[in-house]
Amino acid sequence: MNRKELIDQIKLKESFLCVGLDTELQKIPTHLLTEKDPLFSFNKAIVEATSRNAVSYKINLAFYEQYGRKGWESMEKTLEIIPKECLLIADAKRGDIGNTSKMYAKAFFENYNYDAITVSPYMGHDSVGPFLEYHDKFTIVLGLTSNTGSQDFQMLDTPEGKMYESVLKKISTWGTPDNLMFVIGATKAEKFAEIRKILPDYFFLVPGVGAQGGDLEGVSRYGMNSECGLLVNSSRGIIYSSSGTDFDQAAANEAEKLQLEMKKYLKLKNVI
Amino acid sequence: MNRKELIDQIKLKESFLCVGLDTELQKIPTHLLTEKDPLFSFNKAIVEATSRNAVSYKINLAFYEQYGRKGWESMEKTLEIIPKECLLIADAKRGDIGNTSKMYAKAFFENYNYDAITVSPYMGHDSVGPFLEYHDKFTIVLGLTSNTGSQDFQMLDTPEGKMYESVLKKISTWGTPDNLMFVIGATKAEKFAEIRKILPDYFFLVPGVGAQGGDLEGVSRYGMNSECGLLVNSSRGIIYSSSGTDFDQAAANEAEKLQLEMKKYLKLKNVI
Repeated sequence: MNRKELIDQIKLKESFLCVGLDTELQKIPTHLLTEKDPLFSFNKAIVEATSRNAVSYKINLAFYEQYGRKGWESMEKTLEIIPKECLLIADAKRGDIGNTSKMYAKAFFENYNYDAITVSPYMGHDSVGPFLEYHDKFTIVLGLTSNTGSQDFQMLDTPEGKMYESVLKKISTWGTPDNLMFVIGATKAEKFAEIRKILPDYFFLVPGVGAQGGDLEGVSRYGMNSECGLLVNSSRGIIYSSSGTDFDQAAANEAEKLQLEMKKYLKLKNVI
Repeated sequence: MNRKELIDQIKLKESFLCVGLDTELQKIPTHLLTEKDPLFSFNKAIVEATSRNAVSYKINLAFYEQYGRKGWESMEKTLEIIPKECLLIADAKRGDIGNTSKMYAKAFFENYNYDAITVSPYMGHDSVGPFLEYHDKFTIVLGLTSNTGSQDFQMLDTPEGKMYESVLKKISTWGTPDNLMFVIGATKAEKFAEIRKILPDYFFLVPGVGAQGGDLEGVSRYGMNSECGLLVNSSRGIIYSSSGTDFDQAAANEAEKLQLEMKKYLKLKNVI
């Protein structure tokens, strides 16, 4: 799925919602635990309930890795049922020496056919480059994250501004808005205005609306560009909005609520 | 396996060798490809051939993830045959928000019973902390890596010195030498003298001897402390030293060659 197709979907669905499938056995409705593959059954119901309002799904690998082989199987089955018109993101935060990054890129982009993967910048060019070689895929590099620990290193002063600004400036020269995005945290919406100045054209994957305390209105006001340029993720706030048998309907309602709010901001910025 | 046990093994085997199981179907001897689980058969033979001279094994997750479920199965089976007296490292370079890092920690430390895991520092305290909560395990944080991309961000000036120095200084206050180590690249041996001054007591995991161009003599001279404080990894240089049916014997020879060199340096520094 390329950038143009993504923007078309945003306009069509009037939404820039990414649903995070942070699926855990301890949190899914108990009536699903008797199913053969509870993680997959849960994901299938959530995807069916939300795909009308979501333009992207994000699979957080940690949640599946914790169950070993069985978890990978649930993950692989989930990939098959996500509609092709939705951008499929592996939230993996990988990054290693060139030789190893190449292998991760192959695994996620070729074997599993993800459209995008999150990547850590710490190891520099040869760790990010092998992902960027896939021109029809998106490498989503961690820029400024939304967790408290983002203060520890991302906010250190460097000759190019804060550390995260160095990351954004340098890495944006390694790719283009057609194959590169950045993770930008949502806890301080005004930050988006500064970052949008540095990177007017790139898409930002914004975690943290909902459970991580992000602010959709502020992010949209300061971060949206003329093609939207935002994918805002919500995981727990959607998928665990009910623990009963109505969990899928509840998820659909939450997704729709966010979509309606997003539609308002897309109109305000004349994207639609 | 705790720090004291690791040091005892180093003294007993007169070695600080870590063997990296970067196992790939395209690189293992072709006669193994008819086996039911070629990756596992290869690993089993390599471990049996090298465990006399190695104090640690490092499993690079990328190599197994690329094969999906099947790869995870080979990885899980490999874990079972690695001798308990060897430090078992998951080279995963994970790191995410607290909630997700907790899950990775649980997966690798509890489910798979690894002794150690490599972690990326970029997301700060809450991304590293959940690993450090396991006091009888080792969190191995990326400090200065050996790849060319280490120049991009790790070498940026910050108020605390270079970025990697900020990482070493800050993160060393979050753990102790009993549950924390650092990845320190081997391409410039003199760097080890500076870093040893900052961190006199911590163990360093040193990738890059062999294929990555590291220099065992220099690393030992500048980086070793009175308890050794080094684990030096070699992957391709050992495991792919022959592509014939004698691959295990060839690996044993390479491991022994390194062990004999290591013994010399351990004696020079009065560790043994």
